[in-house]
Amino acid sequence: MTQLLIIGGSDAGISAALRAREVEPSVDVTVVVADAFPNYSICGLPFYVSGEVSDWRGLAHRTVNEIESKGIRLLLNHTATAIDPAKKNVEVVDKSGQKQNLLYDHLVIATGASPVRPQIVGLDLPGVYLLHTMEDSFRVHQHVNETNPKTATIIGAGYIGLEMADAFRHRGMQVTLIVRSEVLRSTVDASMARVVEDELHRHDVEVIKQVDVESIRRDGSRVMVSGSNGFRKSADLVLMALGVRPSSGLAARAGILTGARGAIRVNREMATNLRDIYAAGDCVETWHRVARQNTYLPLGTTAHKQGRIAGENAVGGHRPFAGSLGTQVVKVFDLAVARTGLREDEAQAAGFTPFSHEIKVWDHKAYYPGAHELLIRVTGDRRNGRLLGAQMVGHWQAEVAKRIDVFATALFHAMNVEELNDLDLSYTPPVSSPWDPVQMSAQDWVNAKERNIG
Amino acid sequence: MTQLLIIGGSDAGISAALRAREVEPSVDVTVVVADAFPNYSICGLPFYVSGEVSDWRGLAHRTVNEIESKGIRLLLNHTATAIDPAKKNVEVVDKSGQKQNLLYDHLVIATGASPVRPQIVGLDLPGVYLLHTMEDSFRVHQHVNETNPKTATIIGAGYIGLEMADAFRHRGMQVTLIVRSEVLRSTVDASMARVVEDELHRHDVEVIKQVDVESIRRDGSRVMVSGSNGFRKSADLVLMALGVRPSSGLAARAGILTGARGAIRVNREMATNLRDIYAAGDCVETWHRVARQNTYLPLGTTAHKQGRIAGENAVGGHRPFAGSLGTQVVKVFDLAVARTGLREDEAQAAGFTPFSHEIKVWDHKAYYPGAHELLIRVTGDRRNGRLLGAQMVGHWQAEVAKRIDVFATALFHAMNVEELNDLDLSYTPPVSSPWDPVQMSAQDWVNAKERNIG
Repeated sequence: MTQLLIIGGSDAGISAALRAREVEPSVDVTVVVADAFPNYSICGLPFYVSGEVSDWRGLAHRTVNEIESKGIRLLLNHTATAIDPAKKNVEVVDKSGQKQNLLYDHLVIATGASPVRPQIVGLDLPGVYLLHTMEDSFRVHQHVNETNPKTATIIGAGYIGLEMADAFRHRGMQVTLIVRSEVLRSTVDASMARVVEDELHRHDVEVIKQVDVESIRRDGSRVMVSGSNGFRKSADLVLMALGVRPSSGLAARAGILTGARGAIRVNREMATNLRDIYAAGDCVETWHRVARQNTYLPLGTTAHKQGRIAGENAVGGHRPFAGSLGTQVVKVFDLAVARTGLREDEAQAAGFTPFSHEIKVWDHKAYYPGAHELLIRVTGDRRNGRLLGAQMVGHWQAEVAKRIDVFATALFHAMNVEELNDLDLSYTPPVSSPWDPVQMSAQDWVNAKERNIG
Repeated sequence: MTQLLIIGGSDAGISAALRAREVEPSVDVTVVVADAFPNYSICGLPFYVSGEVSDWRGLAHRTVNEIESKGIRLLLNHTATAIDPAKKNVEVVDKSGQKQNLLYDHLVIATGASPVRPQIVGLDLPGVYLLHTMEDSFRVHQHVNETNPKTATIIGAGYIGLEMADAFRHRGMQVTLIVRSEVLRSTVDASMARVVEDELHRHDVEVIKQVDVESIRRDGSRVMVSGSNGFRKSADLVLMALGVRPSSGLAARAGILTGARGAIRVNREMATNLRDIYAAGDCVETWHRVARQNTYLPLGTTAHKQGRIAGENAVGGHRPFAGSLGTQVVKVFDLAVARTGLREDEAQAAGFTPFSHEIKVWDHKAYYPGAHELLIRVTGDRRNGRLLGAQMVGHWQAEVAKRIDVFATALFHAMNVEELNDLDLSYTPPVSSPWDPVQMSAQDWVNAKERNIG
């Protein structure tokens, strides 16, 4: 019987396992999982810490039973320590140090990513946390529940940083958010980021910019963060949220090539340079459909897609990965902040001639109660009018996420901005306008570009 | 100076006027408007009657001043009575009967539609209403405000019928909804329509099916509707909502060809068979992008698009109408009911080999509070997997409308159902899942089709 071995039991690994069994029911599938929590929703961790999700078991996309019922063997609490591509063998070790060798016919590497740890002292002090695994979230959750902290300092304003600011405020804590840059960029352009910063202020989050964190030290029962320009702040709890980097060491040691940001290099079929070895998810390079180049874009949605493709191809398929558009959304208090495609600076770097234009527009006919303002930023190519990206900020129940998805679907098909007006989108006064806000922003972009050139 | 004359001041007419002035600022534009309310949101009338919109002026997409500030001349309270294509003359008459002749270089006909009036007695009795114009809505509004009716009978369950059931319940009235068919179809398939019917029941709307209305008579201070199978029901107020038919008489009398349902025949550039005469909106045939044939699909969104194109082409442009997908959404109490593309029966009629499959799925990760179930029905071609249409029912704040728009954008590009999995859609637990419900329904459709064939 053909042996498919998968290293990693998060989104990409489990997607690969499920898809392999779906297209090739005779294949024997084993997934090596580093902890006891396969297929958990990492994106859900902030909502567990906030208390909005009361039972952590709810964070499982699927239970162990559901996965095993698909004929998938889970090797929990095992870590892969070496791959021998010549012998088609993977060495794994359990928590007691017991080693085991697993032979494979086809291998999928889905080792994910690990949090960036800056080169400073104090990261391992009690009261200093990362949030990447279930274990991490148990630790933070326990700290919050047992010691009832009043204050938290968050370092970094990526998605985890922003969501955790929301989560700690939800717990009634005072929150300080520290970023290195001049603007709170998150992943959108400065003008949109200002709206996010306003939302943080509106919810009493203290935002401190242009601080390089230099050390973390105990300060009595608290933890003190020190940084550039004499910055000092003590809090009951510190959360590091500086993003992630690919966990590609295991692969690299086996002779697998890496590329952007050290991520595993794969072709469009998610195959590595070594025969019968595929890779997917946060540990690999991702083909960007608009930029037409490999990038590092670790996202759960992409991990699911790439895993599904790696699983299908590892058992004989030849499905190509269609590429990422970098589509993403985050909820920050009452706002949804969403984007797809390239920001202006990214478009420039990718060789386009970007022109960006922003409008404020109601999410639905203003005469119907509950209308919210959306800020929409469209980036297109000045030369040929091609859509390159869109960003949107607005109330999280104003269909921001799925409006960005209309842009994403348009981008997938390389549409021109002007062509968005040809789309037949749905309308009723409580949810939209006869021209959807997506189309109003497109019309405004075209007019602005013409004024700007002419 | 070139004279562009436009007959009709609703969505299509005003869109044509605005676009003509936008692309050709030197053109002289006059719009003949039958009442004093140009560019009002007809789709908003139910929300005015319900009381959710307190001031009817709010229903204007644009005010008279805003329209005139674009250099557009509005001839209010004038009705066009004859077109002479040879002399390029339109005869108009005002409310006092005063005639006037208007010469044109280019003409856009945007005369809209009028409510279907069945061949029964009693339509003109006091207490019996249609809802199509501002005047209609003033009359219903006045009746409701001044006589405080307790009961209403609505005949027809199209969008106006459903929205008015909601509106009258919002006013605290007892509502009976009468339909001719065996199921409450509205515009979705029977299984989806059942969910709509449940929602009506949940809000205490009495739904009576399989009744052909035969007469309407006074019954003391009330109005009695009689129908087939001995049906009789008295109420304080009766609303007829049997849909619309194109107002194409004026055009037909001038020698302009008509087609489907008597609507004005236009080519893809919105030109009629007569030189320099364009037409757009609810009075014209609409090119269906999936069915590849002309249909009659009166929708505000389409009227805006067609008007914009007619306006551009009337002053020298050659932009084609990309076609309608029949995308639409209606809010019925707490539900949004949405569709795009072809239903199974329509797909069959258009020569496809449709296969439909339905799933129930959460709008976002169920662990995050406030998740709502969506019912999604996908119709695709059994032979080649091509997406043909989608229908969705779910809570109106569960991004139903813009999820249908993702399907609509995919349909616009003639995607396969399976290809929907390649779309890079946005995700965060409060608004979606790593595979958006759109993609889950696509995966399920593919699996169901394979099981069904194999």
